[in-house]
Amino acid sequence: MGVTVADIVARLGGECVGDAGLPIDRIATLEAATPSSIGFLANPRYRGQLASTQAGCVIVAPAFKGEAAARGTAIVTPDPYLYYARLSQWWVGRIRPATPRGVHPSAVVDAGAVLADSASIGPLACIGAGASIGAHTRIGARVVIADGCHVGERCIVHPGAVIGADGFGFAPDNGYWAKIEQLGGVRIGNDVEIGANTCIDRGALGDTVIEDGVKLDNLVQIGHNVHVGAHTAMAGCVGIAGSARIGAHCTLGGSANVLGHLELADHVHVSAATTITRSILVPGRYSGLFPFDDNAAWEKNAATLRQLHALRDRLRALEKKT
Amino acid sequence: MGVTVADIVARLGGECVGDAGLPIDRIATLEAATPSSIGFLANPRYRGQLASTQAGCVIVAPAFKGEAAARGTAIVTPDPYLYYARLSQWWVGRIRPATPRGVHPSAVVDAGAVLADSASIGPLACIGAGASIGAHTRIGARVVIADGCHVGERCIVHPGAVIGADGFGFAPDNGYWAKIEQLGGVRIGNDVEIGANTCIDRGALGDTVIEDGVKLDNLVQIGHNVHVGAHTAMAGCVGIAGSARIGAHCTLGGSANVLGHLELADHVHVSAATTITRSILVPGRYSGLFPFDDNAAWEKNAATLRQLHALRDRLRALEKKT
Amino acid sequence: MGVTVADIVARLGGECVGDAGLPIDRIATLEAATPSSIGFLANPRYRGQLASTQAGCVIVAPAFKGEAAARGTAIVTPDPYLYYARLSQWWVGRIRPATPRGVHPSAVVDAGAVLADSASIGPLACIGAGASIGAHTRIGARVVIADGCHVGERCIVHPGAVIGADGFGFAPDNGYWAKIEQLGGVRIGNDVEIGANTCIDRGALGDTVIEDGVKLDNLVQIGHNVHVGAHTAMAGCVGIAGSARIGAHCTLGGSANVLGHLELADHVHVSAATTITRSILVPGRYSGLFPFDDNAAWEKNAATLRQLHALRDRLRALEKKT
Repeated sequence: MGVTVADIVARLGGECVGDAGLPIDRIATLEAATPSSIGFLANPRYRGQLASTQAGCVIVAPAFKGEAAARGTAIVTPDPYLYYARLSQWWVGRIRPATPRGVHPSAVVDAGAVLADSASIGPLACIGAGASIGAHTRIGARVVIADGCHVGERCIVHPGAVIGADGFGFAPDNGYWAKIEQLGGVRIGNDVEIGANTCIDRGALGDTVIEDGVKLDNLVQIGHNVHVGAHTAMAGCVGIAGSARIGAHCTLGGSANVLGHLELADHVHVSAATTITRSILVPGRYSGLFPFDDNAAWEKNAATLRQLHALRDRLRALEKKT
Repeated sequence: MGVTVADIVARLGGECVGDAGLPIDRIATLEAATPSSIGFLANPRYRGQLASTQAGCVIVAPAFKGEAAARGTAIVTPDPYLYYARLSQWWVGRIRPATPRGVHPSAVVDAGAVLADSASIGPLACIGAGASIGAHTRIGARVVIADGCHVGERCIVHPGAVIGADGFGFAPDNGYWAKIEQLGGVRIGNDVEIGANTCIDRGALGDTVIEDGVKLDNLVQIGHNVHVGAHTAMAGCVGIAGSARIGAHCTLGGSANVLGHLELADHVHVSAATTITRSILVPGRYSGLFPFDDNAAWEKNAATLRQLHALRDRLRALEKKT
Repeated sequence: MGVTVADIVARLGGECVGDAGLPIDRIATLEAATPSSIGFLANPRYRGQLASTQAGCVIVAPAFKGEAAARGTAIVTPDPYLYYARLSQWWVGRIRPATPRGVHPSAVVDAGAVLADSASIGPLACIGAGASIGAHTRIGARVVIADGCHVGERCIVHPGAVIGADGFGFAPDNGYWAKIEQLGGVRIGNDVEIGANTCIDRGALGDTVIEDGVKLDNLVQIGHNVHVGAHTAMAGCVGIAGSARIGAHCTLGGSANVLGHLELADHVHVSAATTITRSILVPGRYSGLFPFDDNAAWEKNAATLRQLHALRDRLRALEKKT
């Protein structure tokens, strides 16, 4: 159970400065670290914490090597945040039992589902007919993978997620809504992570597609026929309306929305709480959010905003006059 | 298993133009269609696809009859989208087994619940005491219908939905919150569809009411005492706060919100990501959304917005001066 | 089963005016009340309903004693809304069976979980290894309390909530995302209520913390490492991003968001649909929301908003000129 800084470096690389034999029993933030903790400085903004932290060992970039060495033991590596990620992966294998392979006895798996031997199906999960689950994928407690939906390899699906409910499709019929049956499925690539209570709807005719390496946080809504490109990440409460096509390597901040049938190019970054209302073909960061203020100031500005177009006209009139 | 265009027309009506004996094995978008597919042109905007589609048969409105006939077989009908909806309904009965009637053995149904014989209760669903489920209604996997809540006939409730959790009611009590027990229930009419992981809270004193034909998408939140009028549709992530009264035949775009105790008339249409902060008594479309922009442009405009009221005053002063 | 106004006053206090022997069979809004109902006037705005209500008895503040007495029986108390809350609590014990203690046979509870004898674990709930559930806490149907997460005493967790899924942590790695294992847990205090399908993520290194008396509505997302101060309440669909620190006695309106790593002081009130993008150190009410309008008016104002900074410059130029 004992780990030293030398053990970590032997496993994950980096240059050890100081006491390689230092025993480490915890990974911690610099703020919460104790003398037997290892911490990391990922954001230069927190540089000041180097001086105050109690951490026995700190993971730092080369630029902070001197500063870190002056205070104690350090591991120097080009990307401390990535090093921390890898350390956390190694660490979890030491402190937690591996997720058991196979199907929890309380799960309900259709006889026609195809599960890789190394897949893990959690308690009270539900896997439909014709669904498939790839190797080393972990389906959490209470997840639903509906009929004919496919999850790739090394995926993690967190509790409560629903993959393959019907897309929201209705045709107006004299004041009634006629249901459009959703005949497609959901295809999820490899190395995808899907958050708790997130929903990905099945396609209307073809499949809803989530490509390799996509990461979705909790309570995300992916409408039918959506295509999410590889390695795109979406934070909590994002909503992607039906038939939108999101590029690869995009990021969407929390509660962002993309309306239906739009296209986002690769490497588009949408700020939190921003709603995208037309296609974006140029990579970059896009935002649209009413800046918050104290309530009284907001009320005045919001009221004026409702007359903004008229104000513009008044300004034009003045410009002509002077 | 074989279907021809003639079979479809015999079943669903419409005028067949071209080869009525053409075998069809798939419904598809015009883009993805193959020579044995049937596609549809619902939106004139996609008219250009008529020329390029590989579809063996296309469903078109009378205005496109000539154009469609020039390229191959077609079904002509006044409302191609509605025709497609009905075709999908017929099709699904051909390709999927019917949802089995009765209660899945893994579901937990209180002895005091009343279930129609033709209702279907999915795996790991939970039906409380005094709840009732109407004829031909399908309760999906992992749905909760809490004590004393009622679901009508021919409804579909998708996986993970929670009907009848407590409304959010607390009275302030010297810095604490005193719980207001939620004594009402939820009443859901006929032909209602409720999306995955959507929540409808029970009423505080009376019932939360969802009228006939309402369609709710995934991750929608309906607060206590809300009344949703017949045939209203709400897209994903919509939130309706407590005691709001939404009219009939309304639509709410994704992530729209309605604040508490408000009233929306019939035939009100709320755009996506719009928050309604006062009652709307006149039918129409309503919007309120900060238009997104590239981040730098947004930052400048947002900063200026916080001074908008002051700008107005400066404009006024100028107007007086000139 | 029979209850009189005298019984209520004997139990909950207040001054009875009129017929203490009046039998009461229902708590109701003034609007829906019948002669055997007890109603309450909590908001002076609804004062007009005193004259029209059919309620046999009304709960009113001293200011309305005369008005209430003139129409029939009343209970006079300084805070009618709080009185109603307490009445509802007493009432529910009369009309509903108590939630049974212990573990529903369909729940999946790890052998290493620690449950108080008086706790109630609902159907199809899932309690992980090393988790603990305090005395008199009610875990609803289909709730997940993941490994190593702790829920205090007298809490209510509504159906579908997921406590302790992984926080959303990834380090960029040459276009891929390297998972940061989430080594912390979730610690929930006493008297906390958590809504249906709400998610609270486990911490990355330390714990996500929800202090005593916090009330979270449905479909709320709490990111990893968040700290929510005591007696703070959040309405439906709120999202709190990772590592935010929310003070005590705060309120967040529906669909409000707080971005990551921010701090909100105690007694901060955030309006519905407002996104907080920087820390708030001063108590008060904060808002930021595009005011809705009919669609045509909104379109004109929104288009002009995208030129607002330029308009300001034009105004400045005019000011210099005149």
